[in-house]
Amino acid sequence: MNFASDNAYGAHPAVLAALSEANAGPMMGYGADPVTDRAVEAIRDLLEAPEAVVRFVATGTAANALVCAQLSPSFGRIYCHEDAHIETSECAAPEFFAHGAKLVTLPGLGGKLTPESLAPAVSAGAGAGLNGGRNAMVSITNATEWGTVYAPEEVSALAAVAHAAGLPLHMDGARFANAVATLGCSAAQVTWQAGVDALCLGGTKNGAMAAEAVVFFDPAQAEDFDYRRKQSGHVFSKSRYLAAQMLALATDGLWLDLARQANAKAQVLGQAVQEGGGQLLQPVQSNAVFAVVPAATHARAQSAGALYHLWPDKVAEGLDPVPLRLVCAWDTPDRDVSALAAILCS
Amino acid sequence: MNFASDNAYGAHPAVLAALSEANAGPMMGYGADPVTDRAVEAIRDLLEAPEAVVRFVATGTAANALVCAQLSPSFGRIYCHEDAHIETSECAAPEFFAHGAKLVTLPGLGGKLTPESLAPAVSAGAGAGLNGGRNAMVSITNATEWGTVYAPEEVSALAAVAHAAGLPLHMDGARFANAVATLGCSAAQVTWQAGVDALCLGGTKNGAMAAEAVVFFDPAQAEDFDYRRKQSGHVFSKSRYLAAQMLALATDGLWLDLARQANAKAQVLGQAVQEGGGQLLQPVQSNAVFAVVPAATHARAQSAGALYHLWPDKVAEGLDPVPLRLVCAWDTPDRDVSALAAILCS
Amino acid sequence: MNFASDNAYGAHPAVLAALSEANAGPMMGYGADPVTDRAVEAIRDLLEAPEAVVRFVATGTAANALVCAQLSPSFGRIYCHEDAHIETSECAAPEFFAHGAKLVTLPGLGGKLTPESLAPAVSAGAGAGLNGGRNAMVSITNATEWGTVYAPEEVSALAAVAHAAGLPLHMDGARFANAVATLGCSAAQVTWQAGVDALCLGGTKNGAMAAEAVVFFDPAQAEDFDYRRKQSGHVFSKSRYLAAQMLALATDGLWLDLARQANAKAQVLGQAVQEGGGQLLQPVQSNAVFAVVPAATHARAQSAGALYHLWPDKVAEGLDPVPLRLVCAWDTPDRDVSALAAILCS
Amino acid sequence: MNFASDNAYGAHPAVLAALSEANAGPMMGYGADPVTDRAVEAIRDLLEAPEAVVRFVATGTAANALVCAQLSPSFGRIYCHEDAHIETSECAAPEFFAHGAKLVTLPGLGGKLTPESLAPAVSAGAGAGLNGGRNAMVSITNATEWGTVYAPEEVSALAAVAHAAGLPLHMDGARFANAVATLGCSAAQVTWQAGVDALCLGGTKNGAMAAEAVVFFDPAQAEDFDYRRKQSGHVFSKSRYLAAQMLALATDGLWLDLARQANAKAQVLGQAVQEGGGQLLQPVQSNAVFAVVPAATHARAQSAGALYHLWPDKVAEGLDPVPLRLVCAWDTPDRDVSALAAILCS
Repeated sequence: MNFASDNAYGAHPAVLAALSEANAGPMMGYGADPVTDRAVEAIRDLLEAPEAVVRFVATGTAANALVCAQLSPSFGRIYCHEDAHIETSECAAPEFFAHGAKLVTLPGLGGKLTPESLAPAVSAGAGAGLNGGRNAMVSITNATEWGTVYAPEEVSALAAVAHAAGLPLHMDGARFANAVATLGCSAAQVTWQAGVDALCLGGTKNGAMAAEAVVFFDPAQAEDFDYRRKQSGHVFSKSRYLAAQMLALATDGLWLDLARQANAKAQVLGQAVQEGGGQLLQPVQSNAVFAVVPAATHARAQSAGALYHLWPDKVAEGLDPVPLRLVCAWDTPDRDVSALAAILCS
Repeated sequence: MNFASDNAYGAHPAVLAALSEANAGPMMGYGADPVTDRAVEAIRDLLEAPEAVVRFVATGTAANALVCAQLSPSFGRIYCHEDAHIETSECAAPEFFAHGAKLVTLPGLGGKLTPESLAPAVSAGAGAGLNGGRNAMVSITNATEWGTVYAPEEVSALAAVAHAAGLPLHMDGARFANAVATLGCSAAQVTWQAGVDALCLGGTKNGAMAAEAVVFFDPAQAEDFDYRRKQSGHVFSKSRYLAAQMLALATDGLWLDLARQANAKAQVLGQAVQEGGGQLLQPVQSNAVFAVVPAATHARAQSAGALYHLWPDKVAEGLDPVPLRLVCAWDTPDRDVSALAAILCS
Repeated sequence: MNFASDNAYGAHPAVLAALSEANAGPMMGYGADPVTDRAVEAIRDLLEAPEAVVRFVATGTAANALVCAQLSPSFGRIYCHEDAHIETSECAAPEFFAHGAKLVTLPGLGGKLTPESLAPAVSAGAGAGLNGGRNAMVSITNATEWGTVYAPEEVSALAAVAHAAGLPLHMDGARFANAVATLGCSAAQVTWQAGVDALCLGGTKNGAMAAEAVVFFDPAQAEDFDYRRKQSGHVFSKSRYLAAQMLALATDGLWLDLARQANAKAQVLGQAVQEGGGQLLQPVQSNAVFAVVPAATHARAQSAGALYHLWPDKVAEGLDPVPLRLVCAWDTPDRDVSALAAILCS
Repeated sequence: MNFASDNAYGAHPAVLAALSEANAGPMMGYGADPVTDRAVEAIRDLLEAPEAVVRFVATGTAANALVCAQLSPSFGRIYCHEDAHIETSECAAPEFFAHGAKLVTLPGLGGKLTPESLAPAVSAGAGAGLNGGRNAMVSITNATEWGTVYAPEEVSALAAVAHAAGLPLHMDGARFANAVATLGCSAAQVTWQAGVDALCLGGTKNGAMAAEAVVFFDPAQAEDFDYRRKQSGHVFSKSRYLAAQMLALATDGLWLDLARQANAKAQVLGQAVQEGGGQLLQPVQSNAVFAVVPAATHARAQSAGALYHLWPDKVAEGLDPVPLRLVCAWDTPDRDVSALAAILCS
């Protein structure tokens, strides 16, 4: 019973089939192949953004950090939530790729920035002078690191603050499919129509082996991006195998189907937590549950072999109730979900 | 009446005289000259550290950032106060020099870290894994950005935490002389004898034109440091002119005399603030006063032409009382101090 | 008929099968999975190096640049051939990863360094002082960018020069299998037994989709390498899919079988060039042919639809004879090889 | 008798006097002072460039490397002579500041690029694709590292090549005064009127202690430059002391007077070399002599205590004739020049 992370799970059969299909004879390298072309078009279609620049990389850290380097100079200020993946979980990759930019972190309920917190911070940064560096960009995550979701109007409100200050808005969409599945809106509505300038559209946690799309809605903001990707070792010579994964997910709505499956499993667990006397720390809006549960419940789950992280990581042992994170993937077995739910609500 | 910063003031005549004296015929460049030799020895004597590696640079930002790059890899975690100069006022220079290190900032009264705040943060960082980066170093400022001073035993306690975790301790001593003047201890007592591994000993704010000494007490920690200094453009070909400034300050205790003068002026202002109905935000322990004063007092001071910063910078206009920072240099005219004091206590 | 590059060809069925096999249920991420463990052991076995540190990345540029950053400081001098891939074809990735290191390039027949060229360069670098930077490492490519191969004794002679100067020796083995297939020696003999400290063992051009192994024979030289890999976005969360590719190649000697196939095809073409009045620019020792052929032959090949690069790239049109590069992969169709050979020798 | 370098000599009395004069009471820091304003205007006047952005730093390496970072991205190709100071003598500072740019070096007589060598290199770079990086800028040195001088029409010809390719032209003018003194043209004629976009105007070797001006003739190309200067630790808080040095040199033509003095001394030595059976390796066009002299002459000079470098550095001992470099400063004593000349021509 593995609820440690959605990246603990596998690739969808359609992804593997797409790899086999792409494995057909010689094709020119470095993206000059028809599979890459088709995948780019599929992502543009998915986003209703026919002019968007779409590039594929293998990891979410690469995707995010490359966008940061593209949109921020070395002396830039990058505004994000204090629990943002780019701040907590990428080993200072944004700073490395951007050669020293500073992540300016802000608090916020549910892992979300608000215009009320962002506006004064951006304003202070604008007045920080040489000492503080130059305002460069705003980054949000959707779904967030706390499993919550920004609605289009929330994104719009943040974009308004960012754009008023001349800053582009980046969305880390490692779990973008999960967010869209919950929102029930189109991908366009919660991205470029809401003011997002650059999107990292995650495939890995959605059912790929290792594939993410970096999307710039305004081609002018993507100038020279390929050089950055190349210089950081993220241009694949056999590009087709990255592209094929994203193509499979983007075909026939598979990406949304898989996200809905994962989200539904999280709903089951979230319900169980509440029935069993635990408390949700955040509403369950995507494929993860953040909750506290009685220590006895935790002990039973451990005995049953359930794998998951206490959250935040490294909290002291011996707490009661116990804070934890449960993450579901599209292929987390239903019997595991049921088994854990039974423990949680008992 | 300029109380904006100690760097608004000039160089001591002895510094200028030392430059003239150093201007005597040809000398080999890049530090291979007798003035540099003598200045290195003078700083070693000042610190009672005959084996220390001593190098000169022209700015405090260069000094601090070079030490960070020397002691932290690109994936390092550098622990410091949230108001540390390296965090707030160096345009992400540490991140730039260290190619992406992450400053992990901690709160603390009076701009000071405490073992109680540092220890759990270091411990959490040690468990952060690849995501969080590797613990690299601890940095403190003495005197602090809030004008307070770490006593030797406070430094020792922090060094104990750092060293227990295998981390070196850096002291940003842009106003080191002011701290030592207040403490009444030796420079050695509050640095290497208390566990400091690297010291940036400031000359600029102490009466030089532009000169700082970077000191590594353990030569092994300074390996290859000269390459870093060179690669960042901080090796002067005519090294003697940097060295002469520090030599002048280190001669006959001038550095301490000047710091005492500056500190005494701040005491006068601090006293006046309290007499006039203002409140000190921090005890006056060096050459700066952080206080709130009645808006009417502020208005009178402004009318009288007093220059100083509201603090923190960019606070809203119209506050009452008004938070401000008053900084004194060794050569802030006594008549200006008296004049401002008269306004403050009236 | 595609002879443009070995990366224009596909993945071996065994690689795809290994991916499917690895796709079995949940596994912990970031390398803590059994597939990664098995692949590491397989590479260690292949190299007869049970203590080696083995890590997987997806691109050769990433592999090489990460090794450069691991072994060179920002002020380091990296010695390599002037036609080395790290110099000509990685968009300054080594300089980016190492934050500014300088590639010191040397000429050499057949893309190979010799002790006679390396020793004086290293010696000059050792005396370059702060101006020139610090000697850091030596990098060679095997098989080379000109399709030639270093024999173990040639590697040993270079390693002797490097080690005498305290410098580690890196081998870019993007086509390592092709070299070993030609040499008929063991992988150990031409690497660690000959003094190689770090090896980039290429999988992509050998029949993988996108997989390379970075190997440090001395674990002490790999300290903190995982942080570099993470910070540059080259740690895969679903590590098993990278590992599975290398595992497939390392199993039952597949890597060597595929290299032998590719090499044999190149021999056919090389023979044809000579029979047809062309001239080999380098002996055919791996899977590429560098030659000049009569313009008429080139014209016929183009008419027949043969894809290949003029070499060096961007030579003027209209030359006679025409310099070109023909690269074979394990799965270049024999009928294509025969067809091109027929044109070349006619 | 020191002919090792012009940086072995001192500062002109007018420079010291300017420092004393600038030492007058409080002034706002970081460049917001009247001395800086006056120095900026003086440099603009000197260059007949009233709109130019002028900034001061303390070292030539900082000046050059900052310009490289300003004009080149991390994946940029910077074209320069193979003996350019930025390539040979700055410890990879341009690569460090620009985060990995690649210096593409070209040969050329007398340390000079020619349109004939530059044009095909730039053209090849334009076609280098992602592998090779993106063309970024061209850098020349005037006077060159071999003591020769580019005339305005030579600069124009190179600028034409650069600009045709969309690349800005940088001039490293560490010895710019010496070049202008020889050319007899205006500073404007050999810089912006000839197509130079950015100039590093050296003060240190011209009679300052440590001061250089960075000049961008088109303000648009200087955007955000101050952030770079700050982030690299090259913004002085007491800016006036940097500015005062350049102001002194720019006043009443002192910079040209001093350069003429230095150049004249070099002419004496160059004449003596030829009279004594030595040979000039380059015509003496600035303040340095590059020559080979009989070993016996070299031995006599050494016995007489003359300090100078063999050139290139680290040539084997025991050569006959001996290649050497003799550099004169404005204040190299005439008696030393005469004494060495007597030895050289005897």
